[in-house]
Amino acid sequence: MTILVTGGLGYIGSHTVVELLNNDFEVVIVDDLSHSEKFILNNIEEITGKKPIFYPFDLKRKELLHQVFEAHKIEGCINFAAYKAVGESQVKPVDYYENNLFTLINILQEFKEREISNFIFSSSCTVYGQADVMPIDENTPLKLPESVYGKTKQMGEEILIDFAKAYHRKITLLRYFNPIGAHPSAKLGELPIGIPNNLVPYVMQTASGIREKLSVWGDDYPTEDGTAVRDYIYVVDLAKAHVAALRKLIENQSEEAVIDIYNLGTGKGSSVLEVVKAFETANNVEVPYQICARREGDITIAYANPGKAEKELGWKSETSLEESLRTTWEWQKYLNSRN
Amino acid sequence: MTILVTGGLGYIGSHTVVELLNNDFEVVIVDDLSHSEKFILNNIEEITGKKPIFYPFDLKRKELLHQVFEAHKIEGCINFAAYKAVGESQVKPVDYYENNLFTLINILQEFKEREISNFIFSSSCTVYGQADVMPIDENTPLKLPESVYGKTKQMGEEILIDFAKAYHRKITLLRYFNPIGAHPSAKLGELPIGIPNNLVPYVMQTASGIREKLSVWGDDYPTEDGTAVRDYIYVVDLAKAHVAALRKLIENQSEEAVIDIYNLGTGKGSSVLEVVKAFETANNVEVPYQICARREGDITIAYANPGKAEKELGWKSETSLEESLRTTWEWQKYLNSRN
Repeated sequence: MTILVTGGLGYIGSHTVVELLNNDFEVVIVDDLSHSEKFILNNIEEITGKKPIFYPFDLKRKELLHQVFEAHKIEGCINFAAYKAVGESQVKPVDYYENNLFTLINILQEFKEREISNFIFSSSCTVYGQADVMPIDENTPLKLPESVYGKTKQMGEEILIDFAKAYHRKITLLRYFNPIGAHPSAKLGELPIGIPNNLVPYVMQTASGIREKLSVWGDDYPTEDGTAVRDYIYVVDLAKAHVAALRKLIENQSEEAVIDIYNLGTGKGSSVLEVVKAFETANNVEVPYQICARREGDITIAYANPGKAEKELGWKSETSLEESLRTTWEWQKYLNSRN
Repeated sequence: MTILVTGGLGYIGSHTVVELLNNDFEVVIVDDLSHSEKFILNNIEEITGKKPIFYPFDLKRKELLHQVFEAHKIEGCINFAAYKAVGESQVKPVDYYENNLFTLINILQEFKEREISNFIFSSSCTVYGQADVMPIDENTPLKLPESVYGKTKQMGEEILIDFAKAYHRKITLLRYFNPIGAHPSAKLGELPIGIPNNLVPYVMQTASGIREKLSVWGDDYPTEDGTAVRDYIYVVDLAKAHVAALRKLIENQSEEAVIDIYNLGTGKGSSVLEVVKAFETANNVEVPYQICARREGDITIAYANPGKAEKELGWKSETSLEESLRTTWEWQKYLNSRN
């Protein structure tokens, strides 16, 4: 069975491609290399011993996407291709809306014309905003996200739900909490692009001396140690959830619309300082940090109730925070060795 | 001053082009003629004695849009181009999202690159859903619209607000209630395309014998006569509001983002049966009708508080329901005379 993986050389995309290949799916990657690098493709081959088909183009180019669907019998899609930097989305909203919506809609046009089903969408816990009750399950009310990035995710979900209903197709929305870590081979991980937006890449760069100090944005939140709390999920665990979700979609023989929604997290919240300490312990390094003022738009606390994914997908997070952070550090050493 | 009017041969678009030309704006129309006809352009010329520039192409074609911005010193845009049939939007959601979002985003890319401000967006009272309190002012909470059409309008508003904030531009969102009527010359009006979605075109076609009977969807609503209540605004009054809103935007010298939002309605609710009777009285014709079950997704009541538009734009609705419906009938006679 051939699955289109857009953004398949990106962080979560590349890990998912490995899991798909290990589970005997044929994989067609479309990735414009704007936020990824070609060596990831070679590393996927080294890890799996298999060669995914790869097309380097921008999914906004409808005519090229059309050719991919003409050339391959695509039977499903996992759509990772999207801009994802929250801060950047606020200053470049038109580019974010264009990129994140056009790519999705262009793929759906091909799906619609060809009666293809099985679409898995990378969504985010940002669609819940600051939820009133923890943990966050799939029935938690959605809030209009503060960031343009978050809005593109919420709009993407709406578009997919309407697509599934109108054309009786099967879709899954996966709402990720905070993916961290790298492949155990240390050959796949999150590529640094400019100053990291997320905590763990920043911790990693600080530990390796690229950044002088980690900025901890606020220590006066109403949490145990005053720093913000998130649910950090290991990227390989997350990648496996995609395979489980895909299998469930494929096995579902319904002729009606199928709309599956899963929160993907560990179910455990960790504060910024807990992550820093876990990183130091796991890797026997020091991470100098400074407390700064709160950052606008940051929420206090978010962690998942992953019960629905466990029950329906037979999937749960298996890797500890320390182990995830150990792989992060191995990946940084790999990156250093390449330079 | 040259204003781009997209969908400028459509129903509200063509009336607004006339008002712009009468107020000495230069007008560049882009309209793909998918839901309009070329004779409207000739009629605009007959009415105004002026010739707008006209480009017949689909705004999804970025390269053609780019050429328009290269060829003309565009200093503002009124964006009417959009699919607008609520029922159709439910069965063709991907086309609606594609058309209504791509066209908007493509124009904003040109605006962004060229430092152009003054963007007026055709929104709709559908963004309020069934509001809890009447009349509906601009502070009434938004609800997720039930229809894909409504969602494209709400998403369009979000995109424009983020655009204005990020690039410090000036935009106006005009939330129309229910536009009706035709130009006093009877040379512009709403073109019939298939079975009408809206009440007044259906009434018009029933009166002229094209439809056998008007279907009144529900007479058990909690309103005075049991039929649903809307705020019917005369299209020429509505067109004039666009000129007033454009002038206000142009005069605003702010260097910061400007986000003006106005509800455009009469402030008076009319029931379906009141409209039928007003049409019969105004035109001395009979409109046979039958009561049917409620239609899914229809709300009970919606009418505007137009106070903000009156205060800030110096604009208000001036034309009675009867007079509006008289022009509707004259337009139908004109259409009949063309066949």
